Amino acid sequence: MTTSLERFYSVIPAGGIGSRLWPLSRADAPKFLHDLTGSGTTLLRATYDRLAPLAGADRIMVVTGRAHRSAVEAQLPGIADHNIVLESEPRESSAAIGLAAAILSRREPDVIIGSFAADHVIRSSRQFRSTVAEAAAAADAGYVTTIGIQPTEPAIGFGYINSGENLGIESSPNALRVRSFVEKPDLSTARRYLRSGEYLWNAGMFISRADVLLEELGRSEPGLRDGLLELAAVWDDPALRGPAVDRIWPELPKVAIDYSVAEPAAKAGRLAVIPGHFDWDDVGDFASLAKINSGGRPSDLAILGENARVLADSSSGIVVTQTERVISLIGVKDIVVVDTPDALLVTTRENAQRVKSVVDALKLSGRGDVL
Amino acid sequence: MTTSLERFYSVIPAGGIGSRLWPLSRADAPKFLHDLTGSGTTLLRATYDRLAPLAGADRIMVVTGRAHRSAVEAQLPGIADHNIVLESEPRESSAAIGLAAAILSRREPDVIIGSFAADHVIRSSRQFRSTVAEAAAAADAGYVTTIGIQPTEPAIGFGYINSGENLGIESSPNALRVRSFVEKPDLSTARRYLRSGEYLWNAGMFISRADVLLEELGRSEPGLRDGLLELAAVWDDPALRGPAVDRIWPELPKVAIDYSVAEPAAKAGRLAVIPGHFDWDDVGDFASLAKINSGGRPSDLAILGENARVLADSSSGIVVTQTERVISLIGVKDIVVVDTPDALLVTTRENAQRVKSVVDALKLSGRGDVL
Repeated sequence: MTTSLERFYSVIPAGGIGSRLWPLSRADAPKFLHDLTGSGTTLLRATYDRLAPLAGADRIMVVTGRAHRSAVEAQLPGIADHNIVLESEPRESSAAIGLAAAILSRREPDVIIGSFAADHVIRSSRQFRSTVAEAAAAADAGYVTTIGIQPTEPAIGFGYINSGENLGIESSPNALRVRSFVEKPDLSTARRYLRSGEYLWNAGMFISRADVLLEELGRSEPGLRDGLLELAAVWDDPALRGPAVDRIWPELPKVAIDYSVAEPAAKAGRLAVIPGHFDWDDVGDFASLAKINSGGRPSDLAILGENARVLADSSSGIVVTQTERVISLIGVKDIVVVDTPDALLVTTRENAQRVKSVVDALKLSGRGDVL
Repeated sequence: MTTSLERFYSVIPAGGIGSRLWPLSRADAPKFLHDLTGSGTTLLRATYDRLAPLAGADRIMVVTGRAHRSAVEAQLPGIADHNIVLESEPRESSAAIGLAAAILSRREPDVIIGSFAADHVIRSSRQFRSTVAEAAAAADAGYVTTIGIQPTEPAIGFGYINSGENLGIESSPNALRVRSFVEKPDLSTARRYLRSGEYLWNAGMFISRADVLLEELGRSEPGLRDGLLELAAVWDDPALRGPAVDRIWPELPKVAIDYSVAEPAAKAGRLAVIPGHFDWDDVGDFASLAKINSGGRPSDLAILGENARVLADSSSGIVVTQTERVISLIGVKDIVVVDTPDALLVTTRENAQRVKSVVDALKLSGRGDVL
């Protein structure tokens, strides 16, 4: 008999531009292709490296857009063709993760998959992996399992998971039942969550037996599940795959896996959560990027950019630069400056969430050349 | 007998980088070579055009650095060689204006000169010229004469002139005696000045008979005056000018004309001032530039740049751009963004005066390539 980790397969959905990180993140240079920690590694590569020790680098599947194929292969040289799933167009996370589940399930009926975003930052890889191992055990026991991050502050930028009683799974002693998912709270609610000790940050990580995930998906989105199974049935046949994709993929419903799987499973008591005691951030906006890169001290000025030439006086916040220009800041607090060859953003931490609206405005005003 | 305006000769000292306008103003692109009002004209050209109607375009002398010769000639095509005085190195305003006075005085002993900075902004040219005409009349009566701008607000960025009694000059009915020059005041002092009605902004304009100016200069700086007279004596001899410049110019004392001429003359009761009722600004920093270009409304965002592509949301201040980059501002108030191909400045109106310190820091840190 194999262990749950031996049957484990990582799935990295690498989609999403990260509009709140414009002008750094773009359609042709999405967030996961950037080094956002100054480590010298893209987020995608860091995710891959973090997952490789779990069940081997040959058991990591990347689901990404056709347009990103060469960039992804450049980041992950040697990745096998059967581990790259290309979407002809974005159809949201249920389709992306569900397709991986369906393909892998056909190849290995007892596979346990774990889905991890390509563009999050995690500090302690060892802690992360031991948590995933425990989640895989809970998944093996039949639960759709998520990892909830133990909050360290009353963050308002994340969704929360309300956790309940211990599920009593022998090989997964920390697995708790999930009562519900809750949306990003306001500050006072976030404070209450933190005090209660019952809430974890929703990090969007899902670990599940592939068949269980597809069953759960079939309950809420039967058409989507059927489409994915149909695709998977021909996926490994080069002659049939293309026509099937062209016919089926564009018709699949666009729905986030949180809504199609996680929330319904939670309602039915079939969702488990393992509390994760490691540093995690979804780097959702420049305020978050500033925090990650400044050691958490609000007085700091974080600087990101290989060739950064920054001269700052009485300034805090973050400078992200892709150019070699001298950037001088004087007396600007909590500032966000993002300097790229064709676009410049100047805002503040407080306004970081509003960056997406700029992207929308640029689309509307015909300046899509910089998106 | 000729009128005072017929004997008038304009002098434009075009020196000074304008460090507080870095990274727009540079050693090789000083302030006077920029269009800072969005008019499509450099400040130098606007100054020239404003002065030309006074005594004719052929009676305007520009004193500038050798390095700027071709840029100046490009701005003022057709300017005669005898109207360009080239400094081998900057030696401050007493030397620059004094040399022009000495040269012109040799060519026309009864010349009246008027010196006007190349990099100030004046709105109402007609009002300006009638004020200069009256100043020329006061100069003809033997006074070193300045034009003081009637203050419209308690500005703290300008020096002030304390004016006294009317001098009773028939052809210059508004000429007042200058009691003293005062440095840039603090806000409460500036308010008191404004209320008193006795104070005018020092716009650094000097109108004087050339011989009177040189006499006044000789009192405080006899060595400087003698050097200038020696230079002027050979200036129009091409064979002798070069060696004289090489020998004399580098040894001349560096002193502002305010200290060498204006203040001593004021103390001795020999300085007159004509109140000027026209919009004037020395564009001393980006706060001033913002004011000039925003119609004075602090809620406005001023945008300067031929190819500006600015998208602003809830932002005020000024954007100056020399590039075609999309510049997006979100929720930044009183911001100053100066975008050039090799340097970017982000500061606030309040900190505008501190820009010079950046220039100093860049010099010290070996990043003089962007100065």
